[in-house]
Amino acid sequence: MTETAKNIFYAQSGGVTAVINATAAGVIQSANQDPFFDKVLAGQNGILGLLHEELIDTSKEEPQTLEQLAYTPGGAFGSCRFKLKTHIEDPEVYQKLFNVLKAHNIGYFFYNGGGDSQDTCHKMAEAAKAFNYPLKTIGLPKTIDNDLPITDNSPGFGSTAKYVAISMKEACLDLQSMCKTSTKIFVMEVMGRHTGWIAAASGLAQQQEHQGPHVILFPERAFDPTKFLAKVKLSVENYGYCCITVAEGVKDASGQTLTHNHSTDAFGHTQLGGVAPRIAHLVTNELGYKHHWGVLDYLQRSAAHIASLTDHEQAYRLGEAAVASAKAGQSEIMMTINRQQNSPYRWNINSAPLKQVANQEKFLPDDFISEDGFHITDKARAYLKPLIEGEAYPEYSNGLPQYAQLKKVFVNKKIHTSHEEEAV
Amino acid sequence: MTETAKNIFYAQSGGVTAVINATAAGVIQSANQDPFFDKVLAGQNGILGLLHEELIDTSKEEPQTLEQLAYTPGGAFGSCRFKLKTHIEDPEVYQKLFNVLKAHNIGYFFYNGGGDSQDTCHKMAEAAKAFNYPLKTIGLPKTIDNDLPITDNSPGFGSTAKYVAISMKEACLDLQSMCKTSTKIFVMEVMGRHTGWIAAASGLAQQQEHQGPHVILFPERAFDPTKFLAKVKLSVENYGYCCITVAEGVKDASGQTLTHNHSTDAFGHTQLGGVAPRIAHLVTNELGYKHHWGVLDYLQRSAAHIASLTDHEQAYRLGEAAVASAKAGQSEIMMTINRQQNSPYRWNINSAPLKQVANQEKFLPDDFISEDGFHITDKARAYLKPLIEGEAYPEYSNGLPQYAQLKKVFVNKKIHTSHEEEAV
Repeated sequence: MTETAKNIFYAQSGGVTAVINATAAGVIQSANQDPFFDKVLAGQNGILGLLHEELIDTSKEEPQTLEQLAYTPGGAFGSCRFKLKTHIEDPEVYQKLFNVLKAHNIGYFFYNGGGDSQDTCHKMAEAAKAFNYPLKTIGLPKTIDNDLPITDNSPGFGSTAKYVAISMKEACLDLQSMCKTSTKIFVMEVMGRHTGWIAAASGLAQQQEHQGPHVILFPERAFDPTKFLAKVKLSVENYGYCCITVAEGVKDASGQTLTHNHSTDAFGHTQLGGVAPRIAHLVTNELGYKHHWGVLDYLQRSAAHIASLTDHEQAYRLGEAAVASAKAGQSEIMMTINRQQNSPYRWNINSAPLKQVANQEKFLPDDFISEDGFHITDKARAYLKPLIEGEAYPEYSNGLPQYAQLKKVFVNKKIHTSHEEEAV
Repeated sequence: MTETAKNIFYAQSGGVTAVINATAAGVIQSANQDPFFDKVLAGQNGILGLLHEELIDTSKEEPQTLEQLAYTPGGAFGSCRFKLKTHIEDPEVYQKLFNVLKAHNIGYFFYNGGGDSQDTCHKMAEAAKAFNYPLKTIGLPKTIDNDLPITDNSPGFGSTAKYVAISMKEACLDLQSMCKTSTKIFVMEVMGRHTGWIAAASGLAQQQEHQGPHVILFPERAFDPTKFLAKVKLSVENYGYCCITVAEGVKDASGQTLTHNHSTDAFGHTQLGGVAPRIAHLVTNELGYKHHWGVLDYLQRSAAHIASLTDHEQAYRLGEAAVASAKAGQSEIMMTINRQQNSPYRWNINSAPLKQVANQEKFLPDDFISEDGFHITDKARAYLKPLIEGEAYPEYSNGLPQYAQLKKVFVNKKIHTSHEEEAV
């Protein structure tokens, strides 16, 4: 390392994915090889790790562990849902943050997350200028929801897309076997509070007209029970069964989600889930068909056992690219994926100003949803297909994936000395 | 083929699995090679295919399709839930069945299913004797529930076991990342109406004490909310989070399932599902922790994308063995898997009289459940571990598994001539 080498702070924030650790591995392995940087210090639980001076020295991890890390789901350093105010609203918290950054010779702030996390990264960038602290701020995209703007897609989405498409394909084959004398309806609930990207991805399972999903319910379209039931009935009459994908955030004509349990998280988001049984019971009550339903929940964002190779590679390369951009002196940007062409799929890495991506939500384009509102178009397929291409299988031992177990050696505290014992 | 060569009738019945088609492939590929047999005629939708003379000529399928078939989930020939009466109660239906068997020169009846299906197979055997029809009857085991007696395990279970163990492992890593500032509880609902085999398999995900699942709820143990909540609280205090597996059939002290929707299938079984949200809400209401929950439903029995290699091989070999047993003149048996030793795992194929297996249910042994009733013992681990060993990955194209699409060429009808047009 050079004499002026500074440390990189890297942290994971918001809901985790099957490949966020691939981005972490990309950052760490790439920075480790470059004497321009000292170390990558990872925040324990996102920005909280910085606030509480809980910094993990990633240089203490074995090379083999870092190899495994790239294939391990979840957020290996801990994530957080924590809403940072602006430096004008809460200068005190920023003073603490900059004290820790300074004490640990940190010159680079890498924040890996979705829209809320890019907002945090942007606030740090603004605060650094106001506090006159020399900090390069780089956002790393991550969200299974695929709702970040500018970037063509977000790491995490491709693997979720692959998982939901495969799950739907398999469930359809099951239902098709049973429908003659038993269950005729299967409803699969996927995530997607405001956007239907994940629900849309399940549509890839339909490779021929008779195959499911036969109906997809998007948050971008108001739920119309009459049209929906007519579509279900037609599918059962034509094919003997009907497979349905429903996004958790589907709303009725008045804009209310079909079900919610009124609890909210730190960002004021309502916690959803449980729309699949509602839809399934509606069908049985109105049409008399026996149903089954499943709710994928966490499984859809942590299924590293069948991660998309495209997604895995993009996640890793974004981490590498962030390190290169930091070295080149870039700041106040989020790394982005740029699609060059669909077939054969070509992409490269670019970046966008943080202020353009923070707190923006990218909805499913109108021309990705079929005219009747219940399926995806060919344009959607062309967009989605490359993202699920390839299988990034983890290694197995005793029948189970060998996911990385980090040593997590904490850096000695320099500020919060009263907690020093815990940290060592 | 020899002059006296007869056809084999093969059919799939009851809930399907990730590997029931591997058994089908074992039967078809093995019989195709042996001139002792004419053809394998598969029943469309189980015994109904025989009743309605809807017989699929499997010799018309391409060799490559049969290769793919072994890796394809669901029941490729269609399954059924159909309760056959005895030949004494309903001689007419048997007369129809034997007319079809005779018209199509069928000398072997292979029935692939769980307890109810073995009962059907047994009834056919009894009826054949009463009707003096020369029929060799062989049951092929299949059930994700693993509740068939005598056989050490049942094909389908190993793949479900692997899927639930991996899913739990992945969801735990997700929850562990989030628990500091958000969700602390994840509840995963698995199948298991009366038996906790699948729930137990999720326990394999716990390879170190701090890992989940931290609590497993078995149908074999009455649900005690007080003890359960104490266990959950302790897990959150010790590890920061708690992952819970719940079998759909968990009952309270009075023997009532915690939730059911009162609908029943052809066998009078109540249709369950939806206990995960109940458990999750109980935890949040009583302990205040934020929760997430998932319901695996069909996905757990159709996840051929991560089928167990052990399970896949056993399913295939059982099909082969049934053909060999039929050739050897055996009848009125169900093929069984016999465990020779645990480590290294060794097994071979055996058989048991149908009358001993029909309508029997094998529960989780008492010494497979830990003393507090909330986890599995080392003995359970030793039993379960070999069954999830190895990965039988399907081939992929465009990011999706290439599952077999059969031509399904139906044999010309000889009896039900009025329907002949449909069948050709």
